[in-house]
Amino acid sequence: MHNLLKGKKGIIFGALNEHSIAWKTAERAHEEGAVFVLTNAPAAIRMGNLEVLAKKTNAQIIPADATSVEDLEHLVKKSMEILGAKIDFVLHSIGMSVNVRKGNSYTDPSYDFTTKGWDVSALSFHKTMHVLYQKKAMNEWGSIVALTYMAAQRVFPDYNDMADNKAYLESIARSFGYFFGRDHKVRVNTISQSPTPTKAGTGVKGFDGFSAYAEKMSPLGNATALECADYTISMFSDLTKKVTLQNLFHDGGFSNMGVSDAVMEKFE
Amino acid sequence: MHNLLKGKKGIIFGALNEHSIAWKTAERAHEEGAVFVLTNAPAAIRMGNLEVLAKKTNAQIIPADATSVEDLEHLVKKSMEILGAKIDFVLHSIGMSVNVRKGNSYTDPSYDFTTKGWDVSALSFHKTMHVLYQKKAMNEWGSIVALTYMAAQRVFPDYNDMADNKAYLESIARSFGYFFGRDHKVRVNTISQSPTPTKAGTGVKGFDGFSAYAEKMSPLGNATALECADYTISMFSDLTKKVTLQNLFHDGGFSNMGVSDAVMEKFE
Amino acid sequence: MHNLLKGKKGIIFGALNEHSIAWKTAERAHEEGAVFVLTNAPAAIRMGNLEVLAKKTNAQIIPADATSVEDLEHLVKKSMEILGAKIDFVLHSIGMSVNVRKGNSYTDPSYDFTTKGWDVSALSFHKTMHVLYQKKAMNEWGSIVALTYMAAQRVFPDYNDMADNKAYLESIARSFGYFFGRDHKVRVNTISQSPTPTKAGTGVKGFDGFSAYAEKMSPLGNATALECADYTISMFSDLTKKVTLQNLFHDGGFSNMGVSDAVMEKFE
Amino acid sequence: MHNLLKGKKGIIFGALNEHSIAWKTAERAHEEGAVFVLTNAPAAIRMGNLEVLAKKTNAQIIPADATSVEDLEHLVKKSMEILGAKIDFVLHSIGMSVNVRKGNSYTDPSYDFTTKGWDVSALSFHKTMHVLYQKKAMNEWGSIVALTYMAAQRVFPDYNDMADNKAYLESIARSFGYFFGRDHKVRVNTISQSPTPTKAGTGVKGFDGFSAYAEKMSPLGNATALECADYTISMFSDLTKKVTLQNLFHDGGFSNMGVSDAVMEKFE
Repeated sequence: MHNLLKGKKGIIFGALNEHSIAWKTAERAHEEGAVFVLTNAPAAIRMGNLEVLAKKTNAQIIPADATSVEDLEHLVKKSMEILGAKIDFVLHSIGMSVNVRKGNSYTDPSYDFTTKGWDVSALSFHKTMHVLYQKKAMNEWGSIVALTYMAAQRVFPDYNDMADNKAYLESIARSFGYFFGRDHKVRVNTISQSPTPTKAGTGVKGFDGFSAYAEKMSPLGNATALECADYTISMFSDLTKKVTLQNLFHDGGFSNMGVSDAVMEKFE
Repeated sequence: MHNLLKGKKGIIFGALNEHSIAWKTAERAHEEGAVFVLTNAPAAIRMGNLEVLAKKTNAQIIPADATSVEDLEHLVKKSMEILGAKIDFVLHSIGMSVNVRKGNSYTDPSYDFTTKGWDVSALSFHKTMHVLYQKKAMNEWGSIVALTYMAAQRVFPDYNDMADNKAYLESIARSFGYFFGRDHKVRVNTISQSPTPTKAGTGVKGFDGFSAYAEKMSPLGNATALECADYTISMFSDLTKKVTLQNLFHDGGFSNMGVSDAVMEKFE
Repeated sequence: MHNLLKGKKGIIFGALNEHSIAWKTAERAHEEGAVFVLTNAPAAIRMGNLEVLAKKTNAQIIPADATSVEDLEHLVKKSMEILGAKIDFVLHSIGMSVNVRKGNSYTDPSYDFTTKGWDVSALSFHKTMHVLYQKKAMNEWGSIVALTYMAAQRVFPDYNDMADNKAYLESIARSFGYFFGRDHKVRVNTISQSPTPTKAGTGVKGFDGFSAYAEKMSPLGNATALECADYTISMFSDLTKKVTLQNLFHDGGFSNMGVSDAVMEKFE
Repeated sequence: MHNLLKGKKGIIFGALNEHSIAWKTAERAHEEGAVFVLTNAPAAIRMGNLEVLAKKTNAQIIPADATSVEDLEHLVKKSMEILGAKIDFVLHSIGMSVNVRKGNSYTDPSYDFTTKGWDVSALSFHKTMHVLYQKKAMNEWGSIVALTYMAAQRVFPDYNDMADNKAYLESIARSFGYFFGRDHKVRVNTISQSPTPTKAGTGVKGFDGFSAYAEKMSPLGNATALECADYTISMFSDLTKKVTLQNLFHDGGFSNMGVSDAVMEKFE
């Protein structure tokens, strides 16, 4: 490894189990010399095995519901105490559609569920940055990354209201990224990742078929969780200091494909 | 006029006074032979003079709070009774940020206000299409248009949380547009309009300076409310039957400018 | 019909036979009250039956090789004489890849053919506007449209070097559109059309399979040549005066689809 | 430094003097453990001081006119001999508009100059990849990067025909990137860099004013040549293996700004 994050301090949201992108990112950040705090919602912590990761990466766990400003304030305050410094990098890897879980179609949702999913998946990113910004908790040239999906730009029918949530999330990255850049020299970007067989990914209806389709469409194939972690490390490192407000596709080329030869074979 | 909408029936949301884009669209739709219902929130109806427009265009007014599915169900049912037919076109011209009204900055909002503004400005579009879709209230090749602003793609600091709301709105257009197209041959698009001195537009901080900037940046100058009405008519007409899921910039060219000579003069 | 182009004068490039989009556009422009000149390269005129269209639409034919500035100067001068006025609308519907014709792959072209195809398909649009601009041949609020294809944004392997030519063409629309808007209030746009079974379209390898794929992907199905003509009429009309520098997708929604249910069926 | 490119072999086009992005990239690649060949056109080599860089980075210089397939074939063959291996990374940093040099306006160019500039600035990238692909000269997971500018998407009047050339260049990256990815697992991307005071950059009319404008518009300010080198290193490294067909903005956020407070001050 390369000591790319040597001396850097961070907060990583959303690791559930060893399939999570946040989990792989934590492992890679540790290898690259970073120290960080792990966080997730209490329910998610109970469901997964975050303490295994914490042990492996010498990290402490601070539970926080990312829809609660109070929880986030506690998280940020506690993280700075534990890390003994301001924060250099943050990963937001949080998303959940209640409508998807309950089997509601996009055209007939429960709007209470829509609102809850939006709060968890999108507004939580604003709340996180709000707390970091108000507390002046980020170091200059710090890097904030949220994970997203291309359904924010193009229609994937089974992605349901998560498409709209991701569009809102990406907009927050630009909107808040402006103020964070202007005032504190912090960069904010989203990484738009291939379909990935995480807990969240496989919860999308028809994941296997869709993943196979994306694999055939992408000239380099789907990007794995580990590859996404690598890319995220590059975005946390000092190599990318002037990249901000961007939505970065990490998808083996899928996003700029109209059709591949491999997909066309099915239509000939 | 050209009888472009002869025989077409519609619902027009959001006309407040004679400066409103929805007002101009209603006038133009009337000239082009359409019949329609006018709607707005009860409070907005009290504030404006919608009955003047109703008289002028032989339209009935049905008050409806677009955040209320019940109100929307009543509106759609009543509209079909009045018009004696299914609906051919719908204009959604609704937007309001409580944070802007209250003077909250983007980096320090009240999240209750954020949620209220999102519900009014963005989710209302989903609710409207939800009711139209569930009630099979649209004719084949009908056209649904929502007005939006380029802050959904790029940062305009004073646009505040309306930027994120518009990103969500545009995503709804794509997401719901897919199902509406697939199932009922209805098209759904958004029109991204120049800064316009409507009641809503002038409520944005620094509107005058910003409007002057946009005027100087755009090779054809800013688009007016009347010109936006004309463009909307084209999107309701049969000339544009295969345009769907699009966000259409109507802005004198602003959206594809990096810088104009007129703007550069200020920096030389 | 609606007299949408009543009194307007135009030049229409690229009609070959009754399948051509330019042919349909000429028929529709005639129905809407326009008068115009038809033009194409001498070889294309010999290959098709343009005189049938000329008769039907009361138009004169002026042969011109659109890669020749001299031919274009003659065309524009002669057109203004015939039409007795400046020009209100121009359709550029020209494209041809010599590498495709000769069966060269994208990865092993003849660069002489690449250059020839670029000159015919892309630079010809600059030359056309160059002549119109230098001769001040366009009326204020005139409209110039070129046809393009989404291969300019995303990869369609069989589209070969036409993808790069269309990217260049679309860039010309923006670049020249700025000057034409600023100096003469003329708008310039491209329409990005579904795969269409014209002479040029069916010349692309694997057209049938690809067209079937696009049909399944698009919520409203592929747009036809006639529908494209209708859309082009709307762009020539006064309804769209402030739309400029845009690339407008006319494709039944294809451009904003990630995947449709109908396509996914093949992968499940 | 981090040994990010340890063991990797490359070819770097376009270093002229110590202000060149290619120069900085060579220095950084050397620091990160890469070995490489430097190349430029014979005339450019005479104009600059490439031998200083060659000495500093233990690199050999192979002159090549990038518009000549023969020269490129010699370059690639010779590079593999010198490096004793296939190629892992390539930087294309070449661009020149003869019309700009001669003072021709965009609306009145010499088309011979337009063609020459297109060949040098855009087609040279196709020719380079053509030779690498045909000779199977790239290692799997190799990385090819070309530098570009946002004028490919949006209008910057003084950028002249380089805007169209960059649009063509970016299209080549996608088109060839598909085949290079599918067949050889090689990724191809473009980096869209802030205005940079290199020899080429300062040749654009009004560079100083424009650079000041971009600085004010970008929340993180303009990206420097050294920062671009760092970003390019990240794209050559194994951290970004699944990023392909992308145009990556490296510009302090400029590309996603509508307007900044600092720019608005001039309009209030």
